[in-house]
Amino acid sequence: MVIVMSPGATAVDVAAIVDVVSTAGGEAFVSRGVNRTIIGLVGDVERFAALNLRAMPGVADVMRVSQPYKLVSRENHPERSVIRVGGVPIGPGTVTLIAGPCAVETPRQTLEAAEMAKAAGATLLRGGAFKPRTSPYAFQGLGEEGLRILADVREQTGLPVVTEVVDAHDVPLVASYADMLQVGTRNTQNFALLQAVGRAGKPVMLKRGMSGTIEEWLMSAEYIAQRGNLDIVLCERGIRTFETATRNTLDVSAVPVAQRLSHLPVIVDPSHSGGRRDLVLPLTRAAIAVGADGVIVDVHPHPEQALVDGPQALVDGDLRELAKVMRDFPPLVGRTLAASADDLLIG
Amino acid sequence: MVIVMSPGATAVDVAAIVDVVSTAGGEAFVSRGVNRTIIGLVGDVERFAALNLRAMPGVADVMRVSQPYKLVSRENHPERSVIRVGGVPIGPGTVTLIAGPCAVETPRQTLEAAEMAKAAGATLLRGGAFKPRTSPYAFQGLGEEGLRILADVREQTGLPVVTEVVDAHDVPLVASYADMLQVGTRNTQNFALLQAVGRAGKPVMLKRGMSGTIEEWLMSAEYIAQRGNLDIVLCERGIRTFETATRNTLDVSAVPVAQRLSHLPVIVDPSHSGGRRDLVLPLTRAAIAVGADGVIVDVHPHPEQALVDGPQALVDGDLRELAKVMRDFPPLVGRTLAASADDLLIG
Amino acid sequence: MVIVMSPGATAVDVAAIVDVVSTAGGEAFVSRGVNRTIIGLVGDVERFAALNLRAMPGVADVMRVSQPYKLVSRENHPERSVIRVGGVPIGPGTVTLIAGPCAVETPRQTLEAAEMAKAAGATLLRGGAFKPRTSPYAFQGLGEEGLRILADVREQTGLPVVTEVVDAHDVPLVASYADMLQVGTRNTQNFALLQAVGRAGKPVMLKRGMSGTIEEWLMSAEYIAQRGNLDIVLCERGIRTFETATRNTLDVSAVPVAQRLSHLPVIVDPSHSGGRRDLVLPLTRAAIAVGADGVIVDVHPHPEQALVDGPQALVDGDLRELAKVMRDFPPLVGRTLAASADDLLIG
Amino acid sequence: MVIVMSPGATAVDVAAIVDVVSTAGGEAFVSRGVNRTIIGLVGDVERFAALNLRAMPGVADVMRVSQPYKLVSRENHPERSVIRVGGVPIGPGTVTLIAGPCAVETPRQTLEAAEMAKAAGATLLRGGAFKPRTSPYAFQGLGEEGLRILADVREQTGLPVVTEVVDAHDVPLVASYADMLQVGTRNTQNFALLQAVGRAGKPVMLKRGMSGTIEEWLMSAEYIAQRGNLDIVLCERGIRTFETATRNTLDVSAVPVAQRLSHLPVIVDPSHSGGRRDLVLPLTRAAIAVGADGVIVDVHPHPEQALVDGPQALVDGDLRELAKVMRDFPPLVGRTLAASADDLLIG
Repeated sequence: MVIVMSPGATAVDVAAIVDVVSTAGGEAFVSRGVNRTIIGLVGDVERFAALNLRAMPGVADVMRVSQPYKLVSRENHPERSVIRVGGVPIGPGTVTLIAGPCAVETPRQTLEAAEMAKAAGATLLRGGAFKPRTSPYAFQGLGEEGLRILADVREQTGLPVVTEVVDAHDVPLVASYADMLQVGTRNTQNFALLQAVGRAGKPVMLKRGMSGTIEEWLMSAEYIAQRGNLDIVLCERGIRTFETATRNTLDVSAVPVAQRLSHLPVIVDPSHSGGRRDLVLPLTRAAIAVGADGVIVDVHPHPEQALVDGPQALVDGDLRELAKVMRDFPPLVGRTLAASADDLLIG
Repeated sequence: MVIVMSPGATAVDVAAIVDVVSTAGGEAFVSRGVNRTIIGLVGDVERFAALNLRAMPGVADVMRVSQPYKLVSRENHPERSVIRVGGVPIGPGTVTLIAGPCAVETPRQTLEAAEMAKAAGATLLRGGAFKPRTSPYAFQGLGEEGLRILADVREQTGLPVVTEVVDAHDVPLVASYADMLQVGTRNTQNFALLQAVGRAGKPVMLKRGMSGTIEEWLMSAEYIAQRGNLDIVLCERGIRTFETATRNTLDVSAVPVAQRLSHLPVIVDPSHSGGRRDLVLPLTRAAIAVGADGVIVDVHPHPEQALVDGPQALVDGDLRELAKVMRDFPPLVGRTLAASADDLLIG
Repeated sequence: MVIVMSPGATAVDVAAIVDVVSTAGGEAFVSRGVNRTIIGLVGDVERFAALNLRAMPGVADVMRVSQPYKLVSRENHPERSVIRVGGVPIGPGTVTLIAGPCAVETPRQTLEAAEMAKAAGATLLRGGAFKPRTSPYAFQGLGEEGLRILADVREQTGLPVVTEVVDAHDVPLVASYADMLQVGTRNTQNFALLQAVGRAGKPVMLKRGMSGTIEEWLMSAEYIAQRGNLDIVLCERGIRTFETATRNTLDVSAVPVAQRLSHLPVIVDPSHSGGRRDLVLPLTRAAIAVGADGVIVDVHPHPEQALVDGPQALVDGDLRELAKVMRDFPPLVGRTLAASADDLLIG
Repeated sequence: MVIVMSPGATAVDVAAIVDVVSTAGGEAFVSRGVNRTIIGLVGDVERFAALNLRAMPGVADVMRVSQPYKLVSRENHPERSVIRVGGVPIGPGTVTLIAGPCAVETPRQTLEAAEMAKAAGATLLRGGAFKPRTSPYAFQGLGEEGLRILADVREQTGLPVVTEVVDAHDVPLVASYADMLQVGTRNTQNFALLQAVGRAGKPVMLKRGMSGTIEEWLMSAEYIAQRGNLDIVLCERGIRTFETATRNTLDVSAVPVAQRLSHLPVIVDPSHSGGRRDLVLPLTRAAIAVGADGVIVDVHPHPEQALVDGPQALVDGDLRELAKVMRDFPPLVGRTLAASADDLLIG
């Protein structure tokens, strides 16, 4: 932390701050300029925050310097991490395609979507059994029945399963079926849930809050990491802005920024960002081009019948184009399309 | 819902929509203009939303007309509601002052804060035992020990207690101590928590999401109401914008807008909106002037030692000014300062 | 400015910065902490900004400390200013009501609106002759004909005139008719216009940019002040946020914040903030309560026929209520309703 | 436009609206549903807007249907346009690289930057002689001297010149030197300037307002088109959001969205979006991948000495990487790098 004193601050004001900081177990370094004095603090930032230094006489401003997250920070872990989900890597070197239906509706719809996904190059299956919905009158997902369907489809297709959990107390149940737990945008500051997935023993995909800063996102990841789980993949999914032409505004810059601040992989959800089918492929290309470690895409065999988010699901024709993108773009950024665990064993 | 067809839509396109809507149990009213046909739908909006009408041939736009919330809507309940918390009213006719420490730290600090609050005109005590914090390294509250302190201070001062609950599974515990349950800004779309407080049998204060629209806020209230609990008070606490001079931007317009859309009381939190002590009194005056049914304010006997949000807590001198505001402003908007249940019995 | 070095910065890195800063005519004060070194700079901030210090080896962060505006800052001018427009004061001690039609349409409509305004307590007349419109197909104002109408109505009612100027080269023309020049929200960074009104010899009302920070607003005021004109009134008129229930979000906190940073008066436009007639009175009450030095309100004798912004104009019935607000609220914040110059002479 | 009546609207209310609309020269189509009546309007939308229909008895909502821009709309011009600047095409089929210094400082700096640009594949030179700056104390550009330098460098390198104009009355001067006029983000609603460049007889690059919606951007383009100039290139340059890690948030989705709504080319400015050198290359890749018709990039031979925006300028090493991106990415989206007019003649 750095304290900037106002021009009229006295030596007594400065001494008082040094005193308070020392009492709190910190060290204060005073630097006197022509107009202003600046005091640098070393020690426990949270402790300093509680001192309310900003309210002390002569203080013009207090600025925090060091990053408030540690375990997920790249400062102490310069090499970017590779997270494995059922053997499939997510990280530098590869681009991983995760695809599937937004919501699990029937065994058949889920299987068809999984086969579409696989044909496009996906090596992980997404699908929601527990759906957080803005309206209490909207379809909330099939619950455990949906998890069973996902497990069956994994059996049939070999695709490991990524699925959302919305309540801390469902974590053991969901973790017993899933290969990766997803924390959705509305739950990025549901700290009980973050702590629960931190203890679940499964990799976690943490979406960015729809109005969360990159720093807050990394702080939420730190909550998970603190419970001993560093198998975290960050997922940018669009932020809320004044623009209404798209459901959210995909913040592609967040990918390289988060990769520079944290060692965790960062993927992109082009389906929920735009909320429009015609944007999914352009945004997928942009995501890979900007350096994302993967993309997660909604597909549905019959989007016109989808119970959730049908308007953004890719259909059959789009998937041939998606397959082409997944083949052509990764090499341009020095990566390969992530293969499945089976392929890896065979290969 | 209203469907706007594109200029080139055919009679077949229109017939297809009428057909789909009828099959879904709705009615479609077709109006042909010179350039465009417009179709009005009557029936279950959520059902229609699932039809993905936007993707049908000839459709240019689909617009939702009726409100997506029902129980909390004022359309079917024109009279504004009064919610009672331990006998203290919140609603039209009164301005209720809720005050206390942001976080419960010690019995003494809580009692002193409660006495400060009472002297300023407060008839309800706020205080956090479970604190949602952006950083996992920050003070997370005293938990049940904090609830016990609040109950003791209620005993000593007669002030009913408002306190936050952050996890669905803590609801029975918190409800066993509290007179009103608070759902914080980070949890306004934690649907498990909303449903749990909906079953708790205690009034609920629902803060607005820091990036939530007014409509989403009312939808979250609908989640609570759907579980049988209509004793809900809405609390505007500032929204996230591009401006960085204040922690959040207090949206005073949200008070009359929400009061017009919903019959529920709407109060304002001037402490968390601005995040600065010097703004609390001006924003309190603005809140009462704009028509808020109450305000909830942080006070602390020694803010320079506060473990959470000290910089925004009012201190002794401010409270004399707050008492004056609470006395002078309500009459100007045709209200009185809400009295405590005891006063009501005596009076 | 303060430079924060990274933990691994060397003594050579630090020396290089001191050297660069000295060469640029500044002074650098080095403070070595246990983990980091901090360097405080004194001198010309713009000069330092051009040095691109952030790119130098070992630099972790560069933070600006002093305010980038000077003439409008309260640091060097602690007493809040009173600006006089045709003899009517705007500043501390008073609340000034400015009212009139959004756009001047006919002599009769303007006169009727002015009389309505006066009856409600207004001592300045607003009215637009040059209208900036998002659509090129919308009514753009009457131009000089509108200015003549305003001058005639001033003659008939005694109300000095506030009117907008949208192009630097119209400034002499508009200034020849108006008592106060208004710079609108879309022009707050039209620097040619700011400089032109700075030379016009008339007071200026500077609206806040609809997405402008408070700091940018004060920088725009500084552009005007730099040309020798310190008769500037700041006008908060709502900012652009994600909320769509209101046209803009009135940022009431901006009033005390700007008043603390600058000595200039700050008024509020409750009509354009909300864009809804039913919000004008509540927001007017909030504006006075929060400490605004005045309000500027749209009135129209027949809003259903208004060519611009009819939906937000107050009508006759509202104006009796407005008059009551203007009478009752100023005393509560230690102010009086600003009187006209004539009244002052008589009184 | 569509008018939605409230459930309690009477037949008289509906008749009154039909009457008002007919009087205004429009047609009204009434559709009665079980709960609500809906009225579709055909005719002049601006005229209807002025009727203030929302204020009429029984009206619940008024919704605009057709697009408010016409000349730049793709509805009436399905083929995407190619704009030529000094013979260099911008449009579908190509990706055009525009590069150069943010501000023209000296002949040597400008020539060196132009040569760097050319080596990276640029066929148009950018460079600012008139700089809009938030602070009046910042460097404002060399003015006409800067234009002369640009013309000289064009002579030496063969690169046509793109340069900003900030005041309507400078348009003839700037147009006499430039091959393309740039309207900056702060001037996108400076309507006098838009009209002036509409009459200038030179292609125009119109940046998006930093808080402008895509619709407002197209409306601003319509202002230019209305004056007879359809040689307009739209430039997405990042929008203002709550995120502070980047200067602005590049809205890549805006590229396909604007291309679908308008026939005009859309390019991206990755330098000003992020405001950070390390983001320029990733964002350039994302821009081409998402389908942009070009990119405009800051380069500077000595960014550490740059008077404006040095921190985001590319340096020599980056440019080799940029050249590679410009060579490898366009083919993946079915395009070629735009060649210069000379190459076209020779080829």
